[in-house]
Amino acid sequence: MKIIIDAMGGDNAPEEIVKGAVKAKRELGVDIVLVGRKEDVEACLKNESCSDIPVVDAREVVAMDDNPVCIVRDKKKKSESSMAVALNMLKDGEGDAVVSAGSTGALVTGATFIVQRIKGIRRPALSPVLPAGEHGVMLIDCGANDTCTAEYLLQFAYMGSFYAKKMMGCENPRIGLLNIGTEDTKGGELRQETFALLKKAHEEGKINFVGNAEGTGVFSGNYDVIVSDGFTGNVLLKTTEGVIKYIMTQLKGVFFKNVKNKLAAAVLKKDLGIMKKSMDVNEVGGTALLGISKPVIKAHGSSNAACIFAAVRQAKAFVECNIIKDIEENIDNMKVGKI
Amino acid sequence: MKIIIDAMGGDNAPEEIVKGAVKAKRELGVDIVLVGRKEDVEACLKNESCSDIPVVDAREVVAMDDNPVCIVRDKKKKSESSMAVALNMLKDGEGDAVVSAGSTGALVTGATFIVQRIKGIRRPALSPVLPAGEHGVMLIDCGANDTCTAEYLLQFAYMGSFYAKKMMGCENPRIGLLNIGTEDTKGGELRQETFALLKKAHEEGKINFVGNAEGTGVFSGNYDVIVSDGFTGNVLLKTTEGVIKYIMTQLKGVFFKNVKNKLAAAVLKKDLGIMKKSMDVNEVGGTALLGISKPVIKAHGSSNAACIFAAVRQAKAFVECNIIKDIEENIDNMKVGKI
Repeated sequence: MKIIIDAMGGDNAPEEIVKGAVKAKRELGVDIVLVGRKEDVEACLKNESCSDIPVVDAREVVAMDDNPVCIVRDKKKKSESSMAVALNMLKDGEGDAVVSAGSTGALVTGATFIVQRIKGIRRPALSPVLPAGEHGVMLIDCGANDTCTAEYLLQFAYMGSFYAKKMMGCENPRIGLLNIGTEDTKGGELRQETFALLKKAHEEGKINFVGNAEGTGVFSGNYDVIVSDGFTGNVLLKTTEGVIKYIMTQLKGVFFKNVKNKLAAAVLKKDLGIMKKSMDVNEVGGTALLGISKPVIKAHGSSNAACIFAAVRQAKAFVECNIIKDIEENIDNMKVGKI
Repeated sequence: MKIIIDAMGGDNAPEEIVKGAVKAKRELGVDIVLVGRKEDVEACLKNESCSDIPVVDAREVVAMDDNPVCIVRDKKKKSESSMAVALNMLKDGEGDAVVSAGSTGALVTGATFIVQRIKGIRRPALSPVLPAGEHGVMLIDCGANDTCTAEYLLQFAYMGSFYAKKMMGCENPRIGLLNIGTEDTKGGELRQETFALLKKAHEEGKINFVGNAEGTGVFSGNYDVIVSDGFTGNVLLKTTEGVIKYIMTQLKGVFFKNVKNKLAAAVLKKDLGIMKKSMDVNEVGGTALLGISKPVIKAHGSSNAACIFAAVRQAKAFVECNIIKDIEENIDNMKVGKI
């Protein structure tokens, strides 16, 4: 198996990306190919005393603040950026998956137009796994699609279900529809229409839809997959980050308040560190871009070597599980006529 | 000043409602009138040795799981429920504000159709104040309106600004538009249209719009008012509750892990308790229903006496500030023609 890594994507490229790639190559038994400015990437590889990872030269970089569509519209970025080159290699079968910590918007756009969607899938979805319960909880979509139809959300539910079963180890993934109340009738037109579609699929034994989920319930351990439009999902994801940060700051205030507290906090330090790590989204790896015809994994923009390693591990598992085949084989269940 | 309290609303009615009302009467120097099943409410008053709070009899109760429109459609609930009677008293000038811990949906519906909106205001908004920064941060709307137009959101911004200035002590309230990125161009049609309206109002010196806000930024202390559609705002609010609960559970796990940790946690207990309280939404009081022509305060459904006391204190301040007059006088700025 060969994983194609965009060596220039993210805040810590190329150093940390290369470090993570080298670690993955050594520990995961996968082939790696790095894409980026050859001399820069090779210098990093040399620092790691690594001589068995090939580098494909790409002179351009998609910057975090570039307009996402540059990857398909800008003449240079379209043909010479590390991200576009990596995605084109994936399309052409020169590797089995792409990992990039670059611009989310550009990666979604590039994956959609270069690698292309699975036939029948309307929109790809960003689907990170958040800490909760035994397996974590997948949030799909969390930002690829600002506005959604009920059909998109039905497809997200199926795709999330396949992922949760194969990648998260959930036997019968419990799917919740993000809503403003748990009662069946909650929400406006979009949620009610989606609710009806999910209920129907559940009654036909195709997915395990357990009903509407509120924000309070996302982390309860009662759901394995939370289905949402990308706007709301993105707000949920970032609010979670914001609240965690806020509480950690408050806790720090308590711990450093006086000598007595400082001493007590020192005793707890190690266990609190483990707890903090368990709530770190980056630990899971990256975010799968579900609905694309080949595996594309988005690593966090601030990824360090450990995150890239985790994202490659995720990419490897994703390829092995062949979730894309599951989606392709069930595509007829995910289509909605006029309802 | 006279505050009308729905004695039958919420999980702990009427006991805790009456207790909170008695405390408010004694400590805040306001007149109170309780509305509910006379014999039940009077028994509670007797338990508190209180004889100077009048009770208006109302035989029906709007239940938490009743359809919200029952308050204007169901023959009995419309004329005899404690919530409807309280709102009708407010409409008829028999008091200055209503406080209710009953069904949010019914209260929004009842306030809208019985007390009615301020002339020119399209939709009322639920607007709780969350813990953040020096003054807290107001989230408007958090559930009254599933689907919004740019004009609604512009009106929410103005109303939130007046509230933050007079009730939260912010001199020049910083208004953020909840979005999926801070860049000016983020979001779909609704956010972009709203961004343009808010920017224009800012340039005209009418509000202090500081730009788009992400979920991560809500608790940063960089915003005093966060403007959102009700669906996303509700998810944000409930996610915040869910994450706080999740982290507190995780922390508990650390504190009780072993004897060593237990001893250390005991030292921190008091300060952690203060911290936890500072993050409790209920501590602020209730949630103002902005846009209604007279003051209506929604207390949390699980309100105890302290919450009801805080909600009455908030109602009193709301009446004294006369934010409704501010809104009425500026209504022409909040109207949007074809844009």
